[in-house]
Amino acid sequence: MKSQPFTYENFLSENCKAIRSSFLREILDTAEMSDIISFAGGLPNPDLFPVSQIKQALDRVMSEGAKGTLQYAGSQGFLPLREWIAERYYSRFHIKISPEHILITNGSQQALDLTGKLFLDRGDCILMEKPSYIGAIQAFSAYSITMEQVTLEYDGISLTELSEKCMLYNPKFLYGITNYQNPSGISYSHEKRISLAEMLMARKLPFIEDDPYSEIYFTKTDEMPVSLMVPEQCVLTGSFSKMISPGIRSGWMIVPDSLRSYLLKAKQASDLHTNNIVQQLIYRFLTDNDIDEHLGRIRSHYHHQKETMLRLAKSYLPVNTKFTNPNGGMFIWATLPNEFDTSELIRFALQQKVIFVPGKTFFLNGEGNHSMRLNFTNSSPDKIEEGMKRLHTAIDLYMNHKSVKV
Amino acid sequence: MKSQPFTYENFLSENCKAIRSSFLREILDTAEMSDIISFAGGLPNPDLFPVSQIKQALDRVMSEGAKGTLQYAGSQGFLPLREWIAERYYSRFHIKISPEHILITNGSQQALDLTGKLFLDRGDCILMEKPSYIGAIQAFSAYSITMEQVTLEYDGISLTELSEKCMLYNPKFLYGITNYQNPSGISYSHEKRISLAEMLMARKLPFIEDDPYSEIYFTKTDEMPVSLMVPEQCVLTGSFSKMISPGIRSGWMIVPDSLRSYLLKAKQASDLHTNNIVQQLIYRFLTDNDIDEHLGRIRSHYHHQKETMLRLAKSYLPVNTKFTNPNGGMFIWATLPNEFDTSELIRFALQQKVIFVPGKTFFLNGEGNHSMRLNFTNSSPDKIEEGMKRLHTAIDLYMNHKSVKV
Repeated sequence: MKSQPFTYENFLSENCKAIRSSFLREILDTAEMSDIISFAGGLPNPDLFPVSQIKQALDRVMSEGAKGTLQYAGSQGFLPLREWIAERYYSRFHIKISPEHILITNGSQQALDLTGKLFLDRGDCILMEKPSYIGAIQAFSAYSITMEQVTLEYDGISLTELSEKCMLYNPKFLYGITNYQNPSGISYSHEKRISLAEMLMARKLPFIEDDPYSEIYFTKTDEMPVSLMVPEQCVLTGSFSKMISPGIRSGWMIVPDSLRSYLLKAKQASDLHTNNIVQQLIYRFLTDNDIDEHLGRIRSHYHHQKETMLRLAKSYLPVNTKFTNPNGGMFIWATLPNEFDTSELIRFALQQKVIFVPGKTFFLNGEGNHSMRLNFTNSSPDKIEEGMKRLHTAIDLYMNHKSVKV
Repeated sequence: MKSQPFTYENFLSENCKAIRSSFLREILDTAEMSDIISFAGGLPNPDLFPVSQIKQALDRVMSEGAKGTLQYAGSQGFLPLREWIAERYYSRFHIKISPEHILITNGSQQALDLTGKLFLDRGDCILMEKPSYIGAIQAFSAYSITMEQVTLEYDGISLTELSEKCMLYNPKFLYGITNYQNPSGISYSHEKRISLAEMLMARKLPFIEDDPYSEIYFTKTDEMPVSLMVPEQCVLTGSFSKMISPGIRSGWMIVPDSLRSYLLKAKQASDLHTNNIVQQLIYRFLTDNDIDEHLGRIRSHYHHQKETMLRLAKSYLPVNTKFTNPNGGMFIWATLPNEFDTSELIRFALQQKVIFVPGKTFFLNGEGNHSMRLNFTNSSPDKIEEGMKRLHTAIDLYMNHKSVKV
């Protein structure tokens, strides 16, 4: 009798087998490789990357104290950068945050993974918005948990449904994006923020508030993160990906005092500390330049791109399609009439060299078939126009195909 | 009746509570803050960081295709860098590795964490050398597993004990450092590598081979990693921390084809991809400079520092202390006579402003009391001399204190 050959399948963890693959990452690969117009990814517009300022910042970092920059560093992150972040929250919301409560991460994706490390045991349940961010679904799926979604209404999460699902599932935490949500573009209203804060306190429910687009608004708003209202129960994440560049993989998380030592150990175990050249580069960039001027440029470009896309989508997508009209972020959410299945439509779109993310991707229960997520930040107005025309053609071909089949 | 206040303690995961704190990281903080001579950390000598070449490489990265560098990138890592790594193994060991099997990580610490994600379920058992690397103990402890140590002999892991412990514990994998091990400085002999490879195949036991010091040898060796002998059963990690700089947090892992898709998903879920500026900087640095000249300089300095430390340690540490004499890496392992407890001695050393890591830190069962790990890479020969004198004084004071107590 021959013995079985070695196979790694026998050794894989349950967690690892549970990790979902990312439609988005696969789409990113496609988008890089061809002349496709992509409304699919969540990429910033590279023309708005502050290349020369980053170059200057790097020069300065490498001229001043380079040896220290190249050595191992503390796990919590570069203190002056954490102080800058704290100061920024103070100037925006008049809330004091201690730099001791801030940890620098490799983008906010790592903040989600560290959140999983901190809280999740196999079999736990967590709640998130419906629809929800794919990267979060992927990060949390690595902990063999169950996830339940709570309907996202036009002004934020449904509190009635949240209350019901808290009773049903006894969740470990709620995860959500309160500003210009990915994928929907929806922001929580002032009233909903207050009511959610009340409910979190009443139910002693931790809230993981993901806030990567906070600074990318189109008309100024001073709505504060819910985390700043109930800081001892919340984890708030932020990101430099949309403010500066995603390739530098830098973000942060803010945690209450009771979590600090656990978070530090989790970060150490994960990768010791975040890249030091980049932390110093970001700090230099932020302090040597007028960050609000830079952000103003991004806001105004994206605002224009959003307006262009919304206008064209209304004329090129089917009559009776419903759209969100986000006041920031990167995405418009379109819900087509019931006869359209966007998971089918994507194949016709791909043939026309235009892509979007089918709505189903953001739902855990197979809903979302009629919806699509449209990214407006990575395409110039000209490309948006050309892409919308291609999408129009794809829709025609899809409808013909369907009627032929019928 | 007043309700209990909210406390995060009720929400922490079992994994998170299981993560060990790192004596090393705490020591690093101390070492940064004062005039202490540290033989404790695992820091490279910052005078050997190639500052001007890194500056040039960064200039070039930011001048050529900066927009691409600053954008999101693929999860597996920058292809030309992976090709360079594959080519390097080929030129050193005449073994072909496909760049498709290489993933770029945030230092090899992240490779260990990803290994945990891939393989470890709560309650699993793994084997590692005795003594073993603290960072690995910390990374794996985040998965609520049990760890068993197998004696490290002067020529590598004890195969008899490994065989016995395989039968006793049915381990998920073996973790080890085959070159200039941390903390012992020991390298596996040629015979032991071959026998270990045979045993791994016979037992179908996966081997996680951590190889961060591979290029930091003192006299040239062509001993190959065990992973290259049994590639389909091994994960091999490497690091740029000692070759270039640890502050850039960059390393890699090599996995067999059967693990590739799982590893990619685990990396995506953890932080999408490794920092792109740094990946490009490393590639530029490696291809625009003579890396072997640079490594030659590091090797010769560290060799001299090791010789200096070993010579002085032999005269300043107690008679009958046993030392390893490593042919590379960063550490000498000293085992003092039985009357010395290095966990006590460290307090006297700290008063004399010199530190080392007490041996106990590297053992899971309280052994190692008479040993210490001495780092020779982060101190100049002068500092090594001064530090050894201080250690001599600390030992005298410790002995006096002991005899007074007796």
